[in-house]
Amino acid sequence: MDLTSTLERVAERARRHLTEGHVAGYIPALARVDPSRFGIAVVSVDGQVWTAGDARMPFSIQSISKVFTLTLALGKVGQSLWERIGREPSGSAFNSIVQLEREGGIPRNPFINAGAIVVTDVLLDGRPPRTTIDEILGFVRRRADDPTVAIDDEVARSESETGHRNYSLAHFLASFGRLRNPVDDALSVYFHQCALSMNCVQLARAGLFLAAGGRDPLTGEQVVAAERARRINALMLTCGHYDASGDVAFRIGLPGKSGVGGGILAVVPKRAAIAVWSPGLNANGNSHAGTIALELLADEMGWSVF
Amino acid sequence: MDLTSTLERVAERARRHLTEGHVAGYIPALARVDPSRFGIAVVSVDGQVWTAGDARMPFSIQSISKVFTLTLALGKVGQSLWERIGREPSGSAFNSIVQLEREGGIPRNPFINAGAIVVTDVLLDGRPPRTTIDEILGFVRRRADDPTVAIDDEVARSESETGHRNYSLAHFLASFGRLRNPVDDALSVYFHQCALSMNCVQLARAGLFLAAGGRDPLTGEQVVAAERARRINALMLTCGHYDASGDVAFRIGLPGKSGVGGGILAVVPKRAAIAVWSPGLNANGNSHAGTIALELLADEMGWSVF
Amino acid sequence: MDLTSTLERVAERARRHLTEGHVAGYIPALARVDPSRFGIAVVSVDGQVWTAGDARMPFSIQSISKVFTLTLALGKVGQSLWERIGREPSGSAFNSIVQLEREGGIPRNPFINAGAIVVTDVLLDGRPPRTTIDEILGFVRRRADDPTVAIDDEVARSESETGHRNYSLAHFLASFGRLRNPVDDALSVYFHQCALSMNCVQLARAGLFLAAGGRDPLTGEQVVAAERARRINALMLTCGHYDASGDVAFRIGLPGKSGVGGGILAVVPKRAAIAVWSPGLNANGNSHAGTIALELLADEMGWSVF
Amino acid sequence: MDLTSTLERVAERARRHLTEGHVAGYIPALARVDPSRFGIAVVSVDGQVWTAGDARMPFSIQSISKVFTLTLALGKVGQSLWERIGREPSGSAFNSIVQLEREGGIPRNPFINAGAIVVTDVLLDGRPPRTTIDEILGFVRRRADDPTVAIDDEVARSESETGHRNYSLAHFLASFGRLRNPVDDALSVYFHQCALSMNCVQLARAGLFLAAGGRDPLTGEQVVAAERARRINALMLTCGHYDASGDVAFRIGLPGKSGVGGGILAVVPKRAAIAVWSPGLNANGNSHAGTIALELLADEMGWSVF
Repeated sequence: MDLTSTLERVAERARRHLTEGHVAGYIPALARVDPSRFGIAVVSVDGQVWTAGDARMPFSIQSISKVFTLTLALGKVGQSLWERIGREPSGSAFNSIVQLEREGGIPRNPFINAGAIVVTDVLLDGRPPRTTIDEILGFVRRRADDPTVAIDDEVARSESETGHRNYSLAHFLASFGRLRNPVDDALSVYFHQCALSMNCVQLARAGLFLAAGGRDPLTGEQVVAAERARRINALMLTCGHYDASGDVAFRIGLPGKSGVGGGILAVVPKRAAIAVWSPGLNANGNSHAGTIALELLADEMGWSVF
Repeated sequence: MDLTSTLERVAERARRHLTEGHVAGYIPALARVDPSRFGIAVVSVDGQVWTAGDARMPFSIQSISKVFTLTLALGKVGQSLWERIGREPSGSAFNSIVQLEREGGIPRNPFINAGAIVVTDVLLDGRPPRTTIDEILGFVRRRADDPTVAIDDEVARSESETGHRNYSLAHFLASFGRLRNPVDDALSVYFHQCALSMNCVQLARAGLFLAAGGRDPLTGEQVVAAERARRINALMLTCGHYDASGDVAFRIGLPGKSGVGGGILAVVPKRAAIAVWSPGLNANGNSHAGTIALELLADEMGWSVF
Repeated sequence: MDLTSTLERVAERARRHLTEGHVAGYIPALARVDPSRFGIAVVSVDGQVWTAGDARMPFSIQSISKVFTLTLALGKVGQSLWERIGREPSGSAFNSIVQLEREGGIPRNPFINAGAIVVTDVLLDGRPPRTTIDEILGFVRRRADDPTVAIDDEVARSESETGHRNYSLAHFLASFGRLRNPVDDALSVYFHQCALSMNCVQLARAGLFLAAGGRDPLTGEQVVAAERARRINALMLTCGHYDASGDVAFRIGLPGKSGVGGGILAVVPKRAAIAVWSPGLNANGNSHAGTIALELLADEMGWSVF
Repeated sequence: MDLTSTLERVAERARRHLTEGHVAGYIPALARVDPSRFGIAVVSVDGQVWTAGDARMPFSIQSISKVFTLTLALGKVGQSLWERIGREPSGSAFNSIVQLEREGGIPRNPFINAGAIVVTDVLLDGRPPRTTIDEILGFVRRRADDPTVAIDDEVARSESETGHRNYSLAHFLASFGRLRNPVDDALSVYFHQCALSMNCVQLARAGLFLAAGGRDPLTGEQVVAAERARRINALMLTCGHYDASGDVAFRIGLPGKSGVGGGILAVVPKRAAIAVWSPGLNANGNSHAGTIALELLADEMGWSVF
């Protein structure tokens, strides 16, 4: 199997849509990113790597980091995590805070912001934010098999300064007694994990264990149990693309998680992990050209879990 | 592959939970069903059939019929169906009518009642309800390869008499101009499709085309295009179990559609279709013992799309 | 006290705003009304009548009828009415059906449509719709001291044909077991009461008992107890103008009830009843020029309950 | 007029209900208050003072302070305040944060917490919190004609430490760009105003200008224009008792504002101001015995604006 020409073709067609997306404006450090960037990387479970475009240019992975912190938290507390977070799609951004209120401060799933903040609170476990941030960074570096993965402190600071909505959510959770660590600690970790800077090759490599039954197929390390990897994939499929999760499942049919930095990590069970990046977003906050590229690639390769 | 002993084992374990569910009480004709019934059938894409328990006893398929009417409607109007119905999970029963209002009468997906009523309206297309009911019945009989599949008129009448919530939804849709046929016609079709009476073997057989790329693997008939079958599966996975769709995707990892009659149709892409029936429901309105059985079977067989 | 010149001045100033409103379009029989009409009448508790403009031209009183049916229902079942209907503002039209669901089918107050339909159900009490319609008509004629008040059957029929939203609400109530009579009977009464045709003089006269401690000051009949009249006034103040009730209380400070026909009935406790009519509505569904006229009149006369 | 025996009678009857209420538990400094306390004071526009019970025992006025900060803010920025805050009842606590989101961060009215925080932001106007707190304290002392009125710093600190819900609201407002001062400044002022400690006599005296056309009838100072006083009364009537505002208007018929400390300030236009205090709250968060006392007093005196 050689995906080189396939990726070039996909990239060429997706790039035609670059101008239709809009770069996220609410985090100043992200708003400055060049909207004409496009990169894609595929890493197969047998270790082959194919790329096209800006696949080696780092970007802010933002919400994609929630996949890694969820994996870490499940490793720490196991199934008991689900006493504090649900596993259902939230229906819509609009409803999330209503649901949070109706449902006693139990976030719908670990990929909406409220849920990810609870995951962060689980990871903190009474320790200083810096220790937890280092733990997350270390985990992602091991998954990417690359010690150069870093956190962009300017982005983290920028998020903190403009993060009123996240402060609101965290205090809302705290008002229900759902956080065990100080709000500021949980948010400090959260803003730093979102500021992880990775390129497409690193990101696809880091997600490879999800395509291989929870085991890193290149190092042999069993990151999580096979059953758990399947379940993380299920959550990515049902909840990984904000309010467009159903539509992405419908059109692409692969588990995936997007971030407002324009990145998407997708998983082809038993075969490969894909990372695509293009900063312009569609109306649902997912990478516009990235989503198109994933759809073209999945279609061409016949990659669908269905 | 011989599933006989597997199914017996699954049935034996699932039956221990029979008393924990509650038979749907709001439709009198359904409330009289014996709660101790349990049946399961698996039909493989190469035509083998395995069963356990009451797999040949007919039950009311209720919302599972939405899979068949969706398939028919897509065949009639193709992608244009999605101008009238969305493809996203609704978040919760609670929200559906709010979302309907906020979103101008466009139901979230074809598996919530409002969406299924719009599908019915598409099928009617100006014709008499009886013609449309006959068309649906004919389609399901062909899919089940069994001309004895019938509609239980008493159940249909019972639903009509107690169906105030569905009347409310249909008039709500009509108030947004979203129905092109009279409310009473759309509901007449809807109540009759829900009253389809099938047994597990018939139901699994009828859903087999979804496991086989849209083609009935036993007759060779291409029911829908392969891509369309995948997309129906995606909708079943993200929206097929009411407010527990995310949780079922997480625990079982197979596309499925449940009905308040206690039936569930599940699809194992490329391998088999499964139908399970047990009338007692859990808090989310899905068959309690049926869900447990599916989880046991999927786990034992390693059947997960993830 | 002579209000003749005051009313002329108010009418002259309010008429300047006639073109800013929009006639309700959703009921065909109402959409044909001449938008340049404006009438106002004041009837004092000592029986004086002052008018300006089209004060003798009949119009469809629509939701203003809810004041009369509420009065009748309280007379029939007394305080027990409040077990079936609340007394709180609904917050917004948007929320009403959500609240209805959250609150088990108990409408927020008797002036939102759902509440008025429950009031109608109370009045029906197992009798034929026609009997109840006649009872309402008879009551309004006595209150107006005018046997020529009539129901416009064309408007009633027009409402029925386009009343999907009200059918939806009524079936929604029925699904919670909140209606004791058939949905069609309750709606038949409801559509007919809304189609009551009155002019400003009749309407102000009919509301006079609310300004006089529940007693018709001209005939001496005690229509309702003084305490009950005060409470109906309180409901008009807090809930009488749809989502603008708070704003109208703020700007005008008088109990009032508006209708989409462009009429408003307002009460000046111990002094007078006012009826104003102008078909053009503002964004909240209240008569645009009518609201302005009421504000000018209340301001000029120092008529505020506060 | 001598209300001495009337108040004794009212107090005696209201005290029978003392054990039915529940002291607010979420602010530790409030939770320690003796639930058997009951005080009432009436100050007439001609300066007479009648009391019963613990009318001279200070309590935390909490949300009643919103009446005073609203008055101050209207004095500073006049009608332009209403560009930042609405004047409608919110329907229910449940809805407020949804409405806030739907309505772009414009709180429904100045008496819900979000609205009061915006009022605080208006008062801050770039100055230090302490300056604004002193301004509020000075205003309330002048209104009470008593320089000993003070802020209970322990209560203010207690509110800050447990005020996650208010932090959440303030950050939510900030995320919409609706606060011009730092969140922490606005909340510092807010927590201090809520911690104002007053007794019934002081509180009734402080509210007297609202009963007298905006003019302090004893000092002659015109605090606000008569029209503005009427409008503040209108807001108190429609929005002053949380989700029970409609019910209180219905049962009592007087403008009023309650606080979770168990106090209520009520206004009898042209006659008197009433303050009642009893720490046990009913299900809506209003003083249980206090509401009963107000209803008895208003009924006995025939005091209703309707």
